[in-house]
This record gives sequence, C-alpha cells and structure tokens, in this order.
Amino acid sequence: HEKIFANIVGIAKQFKKNAKDDPRRVIHSLKVGLSLTLVSLFYYFQPLYNGFGVSTMWAIMTVVVVFEFSVGATLGKGLNRGMATLLAGALGVGAHYLASASGKVVEPILLGLFVFLQAFALTFIRFFPQVKARYDYGMLIFILTFCLVSISGFRVDEIVDMAHKRISTILMGASVCIIVSIFVCPVWAGEDLHKLVAKNMEKIGNFLEGFGDEIFKSSEDITESKVAKPSLIEYKSVLNSKNTEETLANFAKWEPGHGQFKYRHPWKQYLKIGGLIRQCACRIDALNGYINSEIKAPEEIKEMIKETSMRMSIECGKALKELSKSMRKMNLPISADEHVTNAKNSAKKLNSLLKSRINNWEEINLLQVIPLTT
Amino acid sequence: HEKIFANIVGIAKQFKKNAKDDPRRVIHSLKVGLSLTLVSLFYYFQPLYNGFGVSTMWAIMTVVVVFEFSVGATLGKGLNRGMATLLAGALGVGAHYLASASGKVVEPILLGLFVFLQAFALTFIRFFPQVKARYDYGMLIFILTFCLVSISGFRVDEIVDMAHKRISTILMGASVCIIVSIFVCPVWAGEDLHKLVAKNMEKIGNFLEGFGDEIFKSSEDITESKVAKPSLIEYKSVLNSKNTEETLANFAKWEPGHGQFKYRHPWKQYLKIGGLIRQCACRIDALNGYINSEIKAPEEIKEMIKETSMRMSIECGKALKELSKSMRKMNLPISADEHVTNAKNSAKKLNSLLKSRINNWEEINLLQVIPLTT
Repeated sequence: HEKIFANIVGIAKQFKKNAKDDPRRVIHSLKVGLSLTLVSLFYYFQPLYNGFGVSTMWAIMTVVVVFEFSVGATLGKGLNRGMATLLAGALGVGAHYLASASGKVVEPILLGLFVFLQAFALTFIRFFPQVKARYDYGMLIFILTFCLVSISGFRVDEIVDMAHKRISTILMGASVCIIVSIFVCPVWAGEDLHKLVAKNMEKIGNFLEGFGDEIFKSSEDITESKVAKPSLIEYKSVLNSKNTEETLANFAKWEPGHGQFKYRHPWKQYLKIGGLIRQCACRIDALNGYINSEIKAPEEIKEMIKETSMRMSIECGKALKELSKSMRKMNLPISADEHVTNAKNSAKKLNSLLKSRINNWEEINLLQVIPLTT
Repeated sequence: HEKIFANIVGIAKQFKKNAKDDPRRVIHSLKVGLSLTLVSLFYYFQPLYNGFGVSTMWAIMTVVVVFEFSVGATLGKGLNRGMATLLAGALGVGAHYLASASGKVVEPILLGLFVFLQAFALTFIRFFPQVKARYDYGMLIFILTFCLVSISGFRVDEIVDMAHKRISTILMGASVCIIVSIFVCPVWAGEDLHKLVAKNMEKIGNFLEGFGDEIFKSSEDITESKVAKPSLIEYKSVLNSKNTEETLANFAKWEPGHGQFKYRHPWKQYLKIGGLIRQCACRIDALNGYINSEIKAPEEIKEMIKETSMRMSIECGKALKELSKSMRKMNLPISADEHVTNAKNSAKKLNSLLKSRINNWEEINLLQVIPLTT
C-alpha cells in the first residue's frame, strides 16, 4: 500500500512541476477543454444537429487536431486545414463527376488512378523543405479530403451536399479554435521567440561574468567547489536552441500584430541573432572545458593576465546582459556600448601582453552581435 | 510565355534535386499511393462495403495520417492510434451508458463534464517530455475518440455497433500501413541513425585532416584560396544534429530487429556518441574561426609548432575516420588505436613545447569518444 501511495505522490509532484515550469500549460489545457465543450453543443441542441447531422463530428475532429499551444501554431494549422479542405473538396467533386461520366466500369479504375496520382505527387511535395516548414499539414489534409470526397462519391449520392456540410463544420471548428486561442489568454509564439533569444543572450552574459572568477581561482578554492555554479552551465541549453527558434519563427509568421510586434515583424533577424549567440555558446563551451580540465596554466602566467582577462570577460558579460535587457524593452542599447569599449580596451591590453593567445575570441564575436541588434 | 516556361523548368529542377537528394522519397510516395489505393478497394467491392458502410472512411483517414517515412515512425503512430482507439472507445461507451442512465436532463451536462475533464487532463499530460516523445499522437487520438464515441451516443442508437465498425476499420488501415512500410523497400530509422552518427564522425575526421594544411599555409596561399574547402565546412551540419538524432532514436525504439540490429538495440548509446561528436564539432568551430580570423600568430611560433600540431591533427582525423568506418561495419576499431597513440604522442610533444596552449583540446575529447564506441 505504501508503495502505491509513494507512486501517486511521485506522479502528483511531477504534475505540479510540469505546471510550475510554465503555468500557461494549465490554461492551455483549460482552453482545449472549453473549445471541445463549445463545439459539442452542436450535438446537444436539436436545431443545430438537424442542420448538420453526423457531419458535426468533423467540427470536433478539427478542434482536437488544430488546437495548439501558441496562437501562431493554431492559426497556421487552422488556415492550412481550411484552405486545403476547400481546395481538395472542390477538386474531389470535380474528379467524381469526371469519373462517373465515363461509365460504371471505368469509374473505379479512373478514381483509383486519381487517388494514386495525387497521393504520390503530394507526398513527394511534402519533402520540400519550404513546404514542410509551413504547409505540411495542409498537404496532408488535401490528400485526405480529396480521397474521401472523390471515393465517397462512388457510394453516396448527394456528394455536393456532403462536401458542403463537411466543409462548413470544419470551418466552424477551426474558427472556434482560432477565436479561443486569440481571445482567451493568448500565447504568442513571436513573444516567446523574442524572450527566448533575449534570455539566451543573458545566459551567455552570466557565464562570461562568472567565468573570470572561476578560472582564476587559486588552487585551494578549486578543491572546495568542484561543482560548477548553476549560472555557469546554464549556457548549455543555448547550444541546442536552433530547432526551437526555427519552429517559433515559423509560427510567429502566421500571427497578426500583437503587443509591441507588428504583423510581418522581421522574425528572421531573431534567427540570425540566435545563430550568433549559438556560436558564442560554442566558443564558451570550449572555454568551459578549460575550467574543468586538469591542464592548468603556470601560476606566473595566470597572475600576469589575470586582471585584464577578468575585466574583459566581465565587461563582455555586462555588455551582453545590457543588450539582452534593451532587447526586451525594445530600445537602443546605449550603456552596452560603454561596456563593449571597455572590453575592447582590455582585449587590446591582453593582446599586447601575449601576442598569440586565442583567448580574446569572444570579443570578436561580440562585435558581430552588436550591429545586428541595433 | 518564356517566363512561365522558365518557371516550370525551375520547378522541375527542384523536383529532380529533391528526388536525387534521397531516392527513397520517390519510393515512399509510391508506397503511400499504393496503400491508399489498396484501402480504397473497400469502397469499390460491394460485399466489403456492405460490412462496414461509411466507416470505411476511417481506414482511409488512418492510412493518410499514419503512414510515415520510416518503419519506426509508422509503427509508432499505428500502435499509438490502435491502442488509443481501443481504450478510448471502451471508456467512451462506458461514459455514454453512465450518462444515459442518469436521465434525459442530466445526460448532456454529464457528457459535457466528461469531455471537458478528459480533454483538460490529457492535454496537460501531453506536455510531459517523456509522454511527448513517444505517446503524443496516442493522447491526441484518445481525446478525439473519447469525444466522438461518448457524444455520438447522444444521437446514434447503436453506439456499440458504431464503435466496433470504426475500430475494425482503423485497425485495418493501420495494418495496411505497417505491412506496406515493412515489406516494400523498408526505411529503417535505426539504420539511418547509425549511418548519421558514423557520417558525422567522418565529417569531423575530414576537418581535422584538412585543418593542419589550412592553418599553417604561408601567407601568400591564403589570399589565393579565400574560400574554405567544402570538406572543411561540412562539420557545421553536425552542430545542429541533436534534434534529428533524438527523433530517429525515438522511432528506432519502435522497430523490430532488422539487418544487423536486434530489437532493443542500445539506441541511447548513439545519442551519447552523437553528443560527444557535437562537443568536438563545437571545439572545431572555435578552431575554424581561427582560420578565418585576421589575428595571426607570429611566424616563428608557427614554425615551431607546425610539424607536431599538424601530425596531431591529422592523426586525430584518421583515428576518427577509422572509428567511423569500423562503426559502419560494426567491428572493433583496431587500427584506430594506433592513430590515437600517435596523436597522443604528438600532443605530448606539443604540450612540452608550449605548456599553456589550449590547442590540444580535441585530443582529450577524442579520448572520451573511444571507450563509448568499443
């Protein structure tokens, strides 16, 4: 009994953690529940049900499949589904008439041929990277609707009526999703992208600020704190952020203007900055490896470069954090320039101290970041 | 007219390129067409259609949605869909009876409550990373089926008959997908993962082999070949391979034994090796930045370390390529050990040449890779 109880407590804790990680998840789940209940009202009220009959089920299906976490994703899927259904429905009806005009024997052969050809062509088109990023779902729905409409025509007589009902319920389902996702506590993918990129920049800044302390610790300190400070390993998550950023940018393109962002906000720029930040993180990973390594520089060299290196690293970190802050507030980074100048000066000093050091890499990288953010 | 013609030629070229990049794409598209045509036979033959009626459409829907590029993905989706439909169907029928037993007034309220609660709970569970990776699709289908079955019960009288028909057609559709994807030119996600990891290792090996030449070129050579050799930037794709590897590993877990791989092959190990390879790529990115930078080491230092550094780098590269080759053939890397010993010796020499260089990083990394692959 105790084991079962411990299990339940464990699962409950996981639920709590999941909700705490991002409270919007709870709200999203509530929103999905709400939309489904709304749509299922079509079943309960006699007059509504009389109009659509069994086709009401397509509204439920649409809600379940289309409702996504962010507004952009929901809009993208909803529009894809709506457009694809309309187009494929029309073509499917056309294919049905073409096939049925050619006689009872040829009809199934012709229909089979149509189905095969369009499935083949569209499945192949789905592999195109440009299509995959934005219209993958639409392609899938096109294949589905075309098959269902054209083949059903072989059995159902009122094919136009059927297609009409199905399309209207799908459009209704999609509208409910889009309306609920935009007007009830919306989650904007664009805003998430904006915050993510700023946060990543801050993480790198944090690392650089703490890095100097860590690497120039005297030997007795090292044995004490073998465990790295959490702020120093935060940057690791930056290394694999590419995919998340690209997905968010794709969703963001679907979104209308919101808050500080207009429609057609230059989301691509975020990807560029994100790429540069990842490059920084990569360099930093190399530096971090140096902290944990056994190979240590001789103490005298350490002493020699300690002050300037630390200053450079801290100033870089400050500049990045400043940039991140001003990016969040969307104003020009003024005070960051100062830190960059300081960092550059320190780097120059360091460079004259040891001509051939590779250490001042992050400074060069930083310079690449600046023009993009302004 | 010429413009339109040029456009068509451009699109045709894209098609050709897409097919050439991976010829299996064409085969996959043909397979999807084939499965759909097979399933649509249910509509054409009177006896088959009499048995299932309109439910036949669920077989088509299943094929369109479940058929994926690799066997693992198709199996995963098929099993998810099958299991979720069975479970949710049973629970939905249960919910229907419970609600209808409570009288005509309470019924819709109780049904609405059930729908809301399960949609809320399951949408929230979908956010768990463990669930998202493997059972996301199953969760979606569970919500869908539960809603459809329990709510339809409000209108359709023979709910058990309906659920039965729907479940059998879905199972049939899923079986067609799984059979075609396994027995007609199968694409194994596990094999792809295996090849991808080996390929990535090779790319890094290529870079290290070429790196020595590039960095120790005399100044006049540099101006000639400003463009980096293609083998030297190949490694960049390695940096962002994490997501692909994880997806493939997830698919691979669904696959039965095939070729050299048994069921329950340790796919996780590939992710570990992949992670280490990415770390190497990260270091290499830092080194690569050094090639393109303006800051050059003084010539005398360059001369001093040239021979040992180049040897170290080349030996590392050879070792990695050897490892990649033996990984592909799945035998023990014997000759690689030799290269590693050579590389280590060179690194030691280099280390004694300049005590405080960071350059010998890749060697240490290499040592981490070895134990994992054997």
